[in-house]
Amino acid sequence: MADKGTLYIISAPSGAGKTSLVAALVEAVERVRISISHTTRAMRPGEEEGVNYHFIGRDEFVRQVEKGRFLEHAEVFGNLYGTSADWVAQTLRGGDDVILEIDWQGAAQIRKQLPEAVSIFILPPSLEVLADRLRGRETDDETVIQQRLDGAQEEMSHYGEFDYLVVNDNFQRALHELSAIVEARRLVTARQSARLAGVLANLLAKH
Amino acid sequence: MADKGTLYIISAPSGAGKTSLVAALVEAVERVRISISHTTRAMRPGEEEGVNYHFIGRDEFVRQVEKGRFLEHAEVFGNLYGTSADWVAQTLRGGDDVILEIDWQGAAQIRKQLPEAVSIFILPPSLEVLADRLRGRETDDETVIQQRLDGAQEEMSHYGEFDYLVVNDNFQRALHELSAIVEARRLVTARQSARLAGVLANLLAKH
Repeated sequence: MADKGTLYIISAPSGAGKTSLVAALVEAVERVRISISHTTRAMRPGEEEGVNYHFIGRDEFVRQVEKGRFLEHAEVFGNLYGTSADWVAQTLRGGDDVILEIDWQGAAQIRKQLPEAVSIFILPPSLEVLADRLRGRETDDETVIQQRLDGAQEEMSHYGEFDYLVVNDNFQRALHELSAIVEARRLVTARQSARLAGVLANLLAKH
Repeated sequence: MADKGTLYIISAPSGAGKTSLVAALVEAVERVRISISHTTRAMRPGEEEGVNYHFIGRDEFVRQVEKGRFLEHAEVFGNLYGTSADWVAQTLRGGDDVILEIDWQGAAQIRKQLPEAVSIFILPPSLEVLADRLRGRETDDETVIQQRLDGAQEEMSHYGEFDYLVVNDNFQRALHELSAIVEARRLVTARQSARLAGVLANLLAKH
């Protein structure tokens, strides 16, 4: 029995601070890696292949979908996004934990295939704070803000499908909570008894 | 749905450092309480009623067993020890977490009645360290030490029945791990959605 990593699905409405929290989590806890999605959208200035995304053409993307190479995929504003099944499987086998930052629909696709995945939903502390964060981002008109709030509420209405809820009121506390979830999962007996095989053999040996 | 506490069972072989770790955990994490057992054994110098144990007579103990007032009970060296069902139920209802420090047999009794209990087994880092700790305690002869090691190995052989394994190699790290387990369980969606009822109502309200 190998010390296999845990697959985490982390979802949140836009404006909840998910991306910053996940980046801080990877810094704070060792052996946690973020899955980098494949996408058909054009690279933007400042983005790098293999850092922000794996950029591929639509034909290639569709071929990989047909070959079952994506754990989940979705079309957003005309662009395709997907999570590589091979990279995830290989990284987990190596003993690292993997984080997928995806929406509730991607989460539902993953759960069907990998029911052992652990899912976490990040909430903003209030609708008012969320609206302020969405307003702060760009100087969009109020109609756009309201549409984004609608989208955020649609996403948040699925919180009950997730294993854990974390409220991002205070960044450090939310980071501490995410770390606790990841650290505690590593202590589960099935995983520990693989990692501690030598220790357990010694403890139970004839003295 | 109330914000109900979690019942933790913590077991370990004698010499693993369980009592010190649990005492430190209660200091480090708020709203965690240790269940105080009832016992028929005589009070020792320095002990206090209601602090170390609830000291009761054998007749009274047996009456409470017959009334189903103990979640688990056991006889050790001719003395009876038991965990009060009422106190545990009431404390959990109040939202605090409860720790039972019991052996694997008590743990098995609890799991049957309360399968939602979370169990943690604490291991020493090696048999050599365990033997040193048992030797350090008192100046017993080697036969007694060997018997204690046998007892410890009997207890440790049940580690696989527990949900989590924590190795007490470094005290601070083991304490951090215990804290992570308790903190993470509080973030489970069923418990959070009770605690966060107001926040969730606000987040999903018509804007």
